[in-house]
Amino acid sequence: MKVSKFGGTSVASAEQINKIASIVKADPSRKIIVVSAPGKRSNEDIKITDLLINLAEQALEQKDTIALQNQIIARYKMIAEELFVGREIVESISNDLSRRLEDTHLTKDQFIDQLKAAGEDNNAKLIAAYFNNIGLPAQYMNPKEAGLIVTDFPQPTQATEEAYNKLSELQHSEKIIVFPGFFGFTKSGLLRTFNRGGSDITGSILAAAVNASVYENFTDVDCVFSANPKVVNSPMEIEEITYREMRELSYAGFSVFHDEALMPVYKEQIPVNIKNTNNPLAAGTFIVAERKKNKGPITGITADSGFSTLYVSKYLMNRELGFGRKLLQILEEEYISYEHTPSGLDDISIIIRSHQLNKEKEERIVQRIVNELEAEEAYFRHGFSMIVLVGEGMNNSTGLAARAATAISRTGANIEMINQGSSEVSIVFGVLQEKEHVILRELYDEFFSKVNVYS
Amino acid sequence: MKVSKFGGTSVASAEQINKIASIVKADPSRKIIVVSAPGKRSNEDIKITDLLINLAEQALEQKDTIALQNQIIARYKMIAEELFVGREIVESISNDLSRRLEDTHLTKDQFIDQLKAAGEDNNAKLIAAYFNNIGLPAQYMNPKEAGLIVTDFPQPTQATEEAYNKLSELQHSEKIIVFPGFFGFTKSGLLRTFNRGGSDITGSILAAAVNASVYENFTDVDCVFSANPKVVNSPMEIEEITYREMRELSYAGFSVFHDEALMPVYKEQIPVNIKNTNNPLAAGTFIVAERKKNKGPITGITADSGFSTLYVSKYLMNRELGFGRKLLQILEEEYISYEHTPSGLDDISIIIRSHQLNKEKEERIVQRIVNELEAEEAYFRHGFSMIVLVGEGMNNSTGLAARAATAISRTGANIEMINQGSSEVSIVFGVLQEKEHVILRELYDEFFSKVNVYS
Repeated sequence: MKVSKFGGTSVASAEQINKIASIVKADPSRKIIVVSAPGKRSNEDIKITDLLINLAEQALEQKDTIALQNQIIARYKMIAEELFVGREIVESISNDLSRRLEDTHLTKDQFIDQLKAAGEDNNAKLIAAYFNNIGLPAQYMNPKEAGLIVTDFPQPTQATEEAYNKLSELQHSEKIIVFPGFFGFTKSGLLRTFNRGGSDITGSILAAAVNASVYENFTDVDCVFSANPKVVNSPMEIEEITYREMRELSYAGFSVFHDEALMPVYKEQIPVNIKNTNNPLAAGTFIVAERKKNKGPITGITADSGFSTLYVSKYLMNRELGFGRKLLQILEEEYISYEHTPSGLDDISIIIRSHQLNKEKEERIVQRIVNELEAEEAYFRHGFSMIVLVGEGMNNSTGLAARAATAISRTGANIEMINQGSSEVSIVFGVLQEKEHVILRELYDEFFSKVNVYS
Repeated sequence: MKVSKFGGTSVASAEQINKIASIVKADPSRKIIVVSAPGKRSNEDIKITDLLINLAEQALEQKDTIALQNQIIARYKMIAEELFVGREIVESISNDLSRRLEDTHLTKDQFIDQLKAAGEDNNAKLIAAYFNNIGLPAQYMNPKEAGLIVTDFPQPTQATEEAYNKLSELQHSEKIIVFPGFFGFTKSGLLRTFNRGGSDITGSILAAAVNASVYENFTDVDCVFSANPKVVNSPMEIEEITYREMRELSYAGFSVFHDEALMPVYKEQIPVNIKNTNNPLAAGTFIVAERKKNKGPITGITADSGFSTLYVSKYLMNRELGFGRKLLQILEEEYISYEHTPSGLDDISIIIRSHQLNKEKEERIVQRIVNELEAEEAYFRHGFSMIVLVGEGMNNSTGLAARAATAISRTGANIEMINQGSSEVSIVFGVLQEKEHVILRELYDEFFSKVNVYS
């Protein structure tokens, strides 16, 4: 049994939903279909989810929401008409939106969640209706009825143990199940959404719950590439990649698969197959526990910009028990998480994602460090990129760091930071943001284009 | 005005003290002489300080101490006789020891401190007497009278602001001042010793207090070498080195100069000259704020063994605000300080000096990490060395990390950890202990023996 999830662009129009029907028909083991809300049909298009968030905010501000509601309904109506699904479905979507807007006993966050989830929920109803119309016996499945119970506020939304038990019942369904992604319900019945991109999470939970043979994740690319195709010219396709590798890649820039979504399938060791709705015959990329195909020490190269460095120095810092801990505590009290902490004898640098900072926060942190920790120097620097090389077994590959550092130095760039030594599957280089692309290309050349004499 | 400190081997015998007299005579600006306790004359010899610690412990255990006292006094007597200094000085040393042993109102630590300090104190008296005998007008200076006031228990022993003010008076002395190293007095008059090797600290404090033109540190080597001569064949002599470089080198294995001793002279930017009592005409090594002579990006290479790694992994660790801080807190509660913390997405390694660990402590820490932080894995690994490359301006030297990593990979060794990015003067490589020497030689070859095409 396969669980197949279709992302935003795969369900953006009647034409796309038609492709889904063909895909589902082609393989009877595709029994559970998880769908996103209609995404963009073109670059200028607006995602339904964004319209819904907008709608929720307007409603909260007591503004008139009729125009926005109509815009959303029109989008579903167009899809429904092109699929020749009856008018009732559009009416039911319209009524559903009104009901959600009228639910005024909720907190602000709950209200927004409830509206956001309407995108997936109504799309699942529409697609189930379409499947039945064309002779594919299908059933829309409400996450509440199915038992997708999630943790309560203020914890982050996560499926509970109970959810997995209840959801496992879905494997006995005779009909094809069409399941809306992105949300579940707390024990007390409140709707909660997962993180953005959370339809991937729903699919992963279902695949784990029914112990699927594979979790298919349909998107709009043929596969995961070994480097960003927008930066590197025709990068190699990745046939197989491990969970750990995928997680490192998706964390640092690879947006193809939401990294939190790996957790449920990772636990049950269910392979994930990234596939293209527009080219379903392409094999795609398999995410697995252990790779069989191993071409070199590096599976992928990625980079992410938008990092800052907090530099702190104090003479004899390394003799001061608790200095590092106190420094991290100050950051924690400012709700700032950090990525790396390279250190010298008398200094430490903390690498932070810049979006967590602003001028006022930075000044307050620097003041606290100088006052409370009696540091001699403390300042922020901005504009760094982290380049991440990912590959299982790089730990056993003597000389890999040397090759990478040599390649980077060929570009004339300075290596501001190296983090190697804990992860067995990645090595991180900090560089100035403006050098990111030229370094990515040079590293790609080094590890993928050359005849591989080392590995 | 120069402050000249003579270490243990420089004051170990009459012959050596004779050399000191010649050195002092040769330069009238050598006005303040700081002396250690008599050190080893040969490999089998026992340092006076070690005998004194032994003596203190025996006395605390209420054992008979006559034999040990006589052994210590005999050593001074031999020096005194060979220097033709009168019997009174030996008697005064003998009385001094008895007085210290009878001081029973002290705590255990205070009692040991008081006895340990006798080595330097009596040696200073002896040497002052000898100087006067041979026509060098000299004066033994008691640190209490001179005003070397140090911080109180339980703080680590450090000179106070007041001490610097009082000690600055010494610059007006007409006679040569012979000052015992290693100890000072608290405000309330209690004797406290500095860290082991603390005569370097006394000399540095005095040099800063009198604003010396140079702080001469006489030892038994001609200079500081760019690598350990016991590992690398005839390493280059270092003519000039900066404070920061010296500190990094002395921290990781270079035992020539106590790193805490740099602080006072560093603050006042007083140059330090490491010289050889046995070859005083050699220029020695100058430790300065800014180097004028710059031959390459690397000034020295050093290594230290005896490191362990604590590895901790937990899925989605990087999303958990406060994880790193809590981990460091557990170590802090076990009084363990750490050196480096390379990290991956879901794991972190903490590099620790192994002498702080034992089996019981390790098990307790691992248990706490698993229970309190809900880590999936936590374990210790032992037997690592840290290789440190030191050089000002290595930050601006593109490709340096690449050259170093390439050199290491030529030895076939795996790089277990790289820490680069905070310190501007060092880069650290973690390797297996047994590879330390072969790597040191290869790195020395790379940065010192080859024609330097990069820098």
